[in-house]
Amino acid sequence: MERGVKDLIIVGAGPAGLTASIYASRYKIEHQVIGLLPGGAMTEAYKICNFPSEVSISGWELAQKIENNARQLGGEIVAGEVLKISGHYPNFQVDLADGHKLASKTILLASGAKRRHLGLPNEDKFLGKGLAYCATCDGPFFKDKIVGVVGGGNCAATAVIFLSTIAAQVLWFYLGSEPNAVEPGWLEEINKQGNIKLMARSEIKALLGDNHLSGVTIKRENKTENINLEGLFVEIGSDPNSSLLKQLGGTVNEGGYIVVDGGQATTIPGIWAAGDVTTSSNGLRQIITACSEGAIAADSIFKFLQRQV
Amino acid sequence: MERGVKDLIIVGAGPAGLTASIYASRYKIEHQVIGLLPGGAMTEAYKICNFPSEVSISGWELAQKIENNARQLGGEIVAGEVLKISGHYPNFQVDLADGHKLASKTILLASGAKRRHLGLPNEDKFLGKGLAYCATCDGPFFKDKIVGVVGGGNCAATAVIFLSTIAAQVLWFYLGSEPNAVEPGWLEEINKQGNIKLMARSEIKALLGDNHLSGVTIKRENKTENINLEGLFVEIGSDPNSSLLKQLGGTVNEGGYIVVDGGQATTIPGIWAAGDVTTSSNGLRQIITACSEGAIAADSIFKFLQRQV
Repeated sequence: MERGVKDLIIVGAGPAGLTASIYASRYKIEHQVIGLLPGGAMTEAYKICNFPSEVSISGWELAQKIENNARQLGGEIVAGEVLKISGHYPNFQVDLADGHKLASKTILLASGAKRRHLGLPNEDKFLGKGLAYCATCDGPFFKDKIVGVVGGGNCAATAVIFLSTIAAQVLWFYLGSEPNAVEPGWLEEINKQGNIKLMARSEIKALLGDNHLSGVTIKRENKTENINLEGLFVEIGSDPNSSLLKQLGGTVNEGGYIVVDGGQATTIPGIWAAGDVTTSSNGLRQIITACSEGAIAADSIFKFLQRQV
Repeated sequence: MERGVKDLIIVGAGPAGLTASIYASRYKIEHQVIGLLPGGAMTEAYKICNFPSEVSISGWELAQKIENNARQLGGEIVAGEVLKISGHYPNFQVDLADGHKLASKTILLASGAKRRHLGLPNEDKFLGKGLAYCATCDGPFFKDKIVGVVGGGNCAATAVIFLSTIAAQVLWFYLGSEPNAVEPGWLEEINKQGNIKLMARSEIKALLGDNHLSGVTIKRENKTENINLEGLFVEIGSDPNSSLLKQLGGTVNEGGYIVVDGGQATTIPGIWAAGDVTTSSNGLRQIITACSEGAIAADSIFKFLQRQV
């Protein structure tokens, strides 16, 4: 161990981890935040209009505001990647990718989730320029436009319905002959809308456009065709970054999300979790819900540490 | 009914109600927010340092930012007081104090809670000037000062512990010979701190000071004495504004808080609740948790309305 034992190490510097740091600082919990990038995935958002106190702000700017607050209150935010957590409360060891080993009494996992990407060339280039991974977040920017949704599950279905209330037309691309595992209520609703076109057995093969996405190439029943559209929402799921907990034998749900109680405690004593990596907030994974979970976790950790003194 | 049937009426214009409006607008849910004051109780906060994106902001200013966002997105925020809700989904009737009657398919109760006050002269005058109702929120402004906490329950005990890590000394005033219903862990912790003074059988009789609170008059074992202090935290509980739900037979807990599920639904079909009036967020009642609950409720209501079409 290269430093003293902290009260808390927060793994992840997105909105959950940073808000947990803000509350931890105010509770005088000696802690450190380890993350690859302050702000995490939200830094990718071109424009955010549903964070309550901001009419319109870029993800990068909002991330900086939250990071700034965390630092002003004394939070130590360190760039790094956590490879492994071992030990037990109150002696956890946290191994970083750069070889450092840290010691902490408790752990908060705020490690987020990775949106699955299509894996196509140009995907990063078109992000925020027609291509999006969150219909709730970015849908309203596509009023009266033609958009596509990729994916055959419930998340894709709700994105299709939501977008049909905004866009001129929604093309729904999925691989099978039917969407899979979609609740009947959603399909009924989709069938009632006049502006949704079901594109079964369709695979996206290429993203088209110069500076902005202007269409896709799909393969459908062995034929390849180009389709014009102004927006494409990739809704093929997320992979929660929960491996650190799984290695310790903690409980995750079928999707890999960390199961937590009302106080954000995981099934491993001394380890809490907050943000997109968890089952909290009814599955609504937003910046505001992540912040709230971070605050709740810090409050739980404060009470836990006080009782253990 | 004086107007058309709304999809949703939100009762309360605090952070929960306004954030629900922001999400409802983005989901195209036709709705109206009815509240006495946009921002609600947070407008009383002199200085807020734990809202993630703001280093330091007055409650009034933060309330205006959230209200502004809600209005920009099309939310209709109406000054008014709801006296009664009657009917069933999808035909609720909402009676306002000014005689108006509104019709709505669904209801979100974001009606908050009232902090119990001491009921002493000058109590309003000293609010934000030495007198506070939230240790988590305002404690850090009292570094190295002498502060008092009034109240004999668990909330008072946690406020005492929290403040003991910040203030020079904490005087804990309660009526009985022992604090009542406080978890043993908290009392143990309190006894370990050198800077907490237990003031049993003490009743606060007067608040002293000119522009800023400078002391209190207490009655203790039939003697009256003046005690100097620079801050006083009133932690004698809150009364949730849950009567509208109770009149309909909805479930509240022993403290009167509305029992909700993970999606913020109450036990009455078609009625959701969010913010300080609920049992959510592990009982941590903060602006950020209220906002999150409002977002979750709006998302649940959107999904509910879509299924019912």
